Amino acid sequence: MTPEIQKDKRIAFIGAGNLATHLAQALYSQGYEIVKVYSRSEESASELAKKVSANYTTSIKEMENFADIYFIALKDSAVEKVLSNFNSNDRLLVHCSGSLSMDVLKNHSSVFGVLYPLQTFSKKRSVDFSRIPVFIEAVNFQVLSTIEQIAKDVSNKVIHLESSKRKSLHIAAVFACNFVNHFYHLAGEVLSEKNVDFDVLRPLIMETAKKVQELNPYEAQTGPAVRFDENIIQSHLEELKGKENYDQIYHLISTSIFEHHKEN
Amino acid sequence: MTPEIQKDKRIAFIGAGNLATHLAQALYSQGYEIVKVYSRSEESASELAKKVSANYTTSIKEMENFADIYFIALKDSAVEKVLSNFNSNDRLLVHCSGSLSMDVLKNHSSVFGVLYPLQTFSKKRSVDFSRIPVFIEAVNFQVLSTIEQIAKDVSNKVIHLESSKRKSLHIAAVFACNFVNHFYHLAGEVLSEKNVDFDVLRPLIMETAKKVQELNPYEAQTGPAVRFDENIIQSHLEELKGKENYDQIYHLISTSIFEHHKEN
Repeated sequence: MTPEIQKDKRIAFIGAGNLATHLAQALYSQGYEIVKVYSRSEESASELAKKVSANYTTSIKEMENFADIYFIALKDSAVEKVLSNFNSNDRLLVHCSGSLSMDVLKNHSSVFGVLYPLQTFSKKRSVDFSRIPVFIEAVNFQVLSTIEQIAKDVSNKVIHLESSKRKSLHIAAVFACNFVNHFYHLAGEVLSEKNVDFDVLRPLIMETAKKVQELNPYEAQTGPAVRFDENIIQSHLEELKGKENYDQIYHLISTSIFEHHKEN
Repeated sequence: MTPEIQKDKRIAFIGAGNLATHLAQALYSQGYEIVKVYSRSEESASELAKKVSANYTTSIKEMENFADIYFIALKDSAVEKVLSNFNSNDRLLVHCSGSLSMDVLKNHSSVFGVLYPLQTFSKKRSVDFSRIPVFIEAVNFQVLSTIEQIAKDVSNKVIHLESSKRKSLHIAAVFACNFVNHFYHLAGEVLSEKNVDFDVLRPLIMETAKKVQELNPYEAQTGPAVRFDENIIQSHLEELKGKENYDQIYHLISTSIFEHHKEN
């Protein structure tokens, strides 16, 4: 099989959220034909369909017999429910979830797999898909080969990873992205109480991320907790007292830093 | 006063750690004369001295009468102790701490202030100092003016901020940098158990930081907690059970994301 052969396959998207939008656009820009987009929301469906010259529908039944490959990019909890109303006619089903097992698809087709791009997607922001690590899995070698060729058309970093490991990957991504972003938010909240603008944190945030592009985060750590500077930690905890559970979070994470760095 | 006049002043550094190294180099590259560097560690003192063509000493007494301006860049808990053995002869003392009040200097000179660059510094990494926000404070207007001119020579973003607000700034930096970096580390630990390399997280980490260079973190949030995806959260908590206090951290931060995003 060659990538050209894969590109003859008609692709449909079940789901039109952030991940679906970026993946569909990446495939489309590589020459794949996106035939149809389904979303419960007509606005989302039509918006994505327009970007990739596809049709769209808000009825999952209307997706049947339309494509060779169906990418399923829904909220995890919606996957079972949507597929229960969909007859795949044994076409290739590929879900894009970090945490769902591949086997959620096994009652819906005999050919199925997973393609999980590890990135945080927002519709407003364009990303260079070719640099995103893409994790794939499939029910058999032939399907894996098909998914791998598609994945390699959009990403330079394609990794075969089984479901149980992919779940850990998703947990790691929650820490490294969602929790990190929440700490940006909490930091901004601390500043806004003193009328200091979030903008002053931006160079620090960038440098913190840039540092670990070369170093590992263990070496890169700085600040009062890793220096075991109890005076500062206590004075920060005092300052945070009464502000929601900021002091609890501060204490828990400082202790965790301390524990990790004293071990070695 | 003009910047040129400030550059006639001889500068000394008490402390030769990460912050001292970057600030001294930034001043030196702007034409300031760094006359002497003190550190308890001869290795640190000589290393920095070499970079800025200065002398060095490991005896704080030998710093006396050497300079017009002393920058104090020590671990907070060391400042009082080191200064108690140092006679400033009423020269300008400027500390670089985020959390120490300006007033820790008042028994050591009549002219004193603060210059706090908000950044994470590592000796191995060069940073563009001109883009680092620098927060200044001084005992009186004249001293503030002196410190401001020096600060403006090294940074394009100089902000006057009183001690109590600077403390909040430091807390915000702990969240946005040290705690964030620790989450990079925890994410890497989750992956290493499954033999997945930290490197796969690097594009995600960069994009997470880049996003908030434009958006605010509240808008930028993605992931299971902000989607209130209880299934994923429970399955992640199950997976993390027994791994130190990872489940406790996961639960606390997910709950915090939930609380912040349900409010609005």
